[in-house]
Amino acid sequence: MKFEYVNPFLISMVKVLTTMANIECSAGKAYLKETMSAEGQVTGIMGLGGEKTKGSFAVSFTKPVILDITERMLGETITTIDATVIDMVGELTNMSAGGAVAQLSQKGYDLNMGTPVVVSGESHHIDHSSKGPIIVVPFTTNAGDFFVEISFVTIE
Amino acid sequence: MKFEYVNPFLISMVKVLTTMANIECSAGKAYLKETMSAEGQVTGIMGLGGEKTKGSFAVSFTKPVILDITERMLGETITTIDATVIDMVGELTNMSAGGAVAQLSQKGYDLNMGTPVVVSGESHHIDHSSKGPIIVVPFTTNAGDFFVEISFVTIE
Repeated sequence: MKFEYVNPFLISMVKVLTTMANIECSAGKAYLKETMSAEGQVTGIMGLGGEKTKGSFAVSFTKPVILDITERMLGETITTIDATVIDMVGELTNMSAGGAVAQLSQKGYDLNMGTPVVVSGESHHIDHSSKGPIIVVPFTTNAGDFFVEISFVTIE
Repeated sequence: MKFEYVNPFLISMVKVLTTMANIECSAGKAYLKETMSAEGQVTGIMGLGGEKTKGSFAVSFTKPVILDITERMLGETITTIDATVIDMVGELTNMSAGGAVAQLSQKGYDLNMGTPVVVSGESHHIDHSSKGPIIVVPFTTNAGDFFVEISFVTIE
């Protein structure tokens, strides 16, 4: 996987959260995912495909973080991961991937997005079934952590 | 959503399972998904994007069905949803979506696939965060049921 795919997603994710939710977040050290367990309780997933490359992008939020983000964006106090939160995760996934696709397009990588799929549940596990490595980047906010996962492969 | 997107996925799914696993399966009546709960214990998800349309395809297997399929494909008895089963679901998702994309291409719909993402866990819920309807098609096999979910939207 070319690591130049990673940064546009991170930049876009931070931009979306700071703009939409006025939330400060800082990226930690990236690592390769070795297990299939998602770290959060709600995960937005986006598949992206192009002529030369394809991949998947996921953002997994712990419950306190996504409740904080939803509250900041809607001005309502929300205590459970309900349909409103699920929709919010879908929108955040869509916007973040969209911003990354725009950046990658300027670098000559053309990718088309699918529609976001949101997974929720305390015990869900996510595996990017790709032949390439999975890069995980942990993010810290005042309300807790969330995790971005990116996996891309070159089409042979 | 144009319903002509649905059939290629169903045809491809059946073809992959009959060819690869020598398993007979019959499609039940399609319905619109109203809730976000996946019906199975392991779900393969594929995002698909094109110039004019984008969507997501998911296939959710109950545990007895995916263990039966894996056993038929590998000739080994498997009792839990382990890494082998997860890989198998990723492959089945990839092959089924690939066959559907080929059929849709012949009809003039060009879609690029992402890479498959596999979700597992007893209590996971799947929501296609798309503005379009989600079509669910239940399938019956001798070992139990599985469910195909398809959601596509036109890009405006």
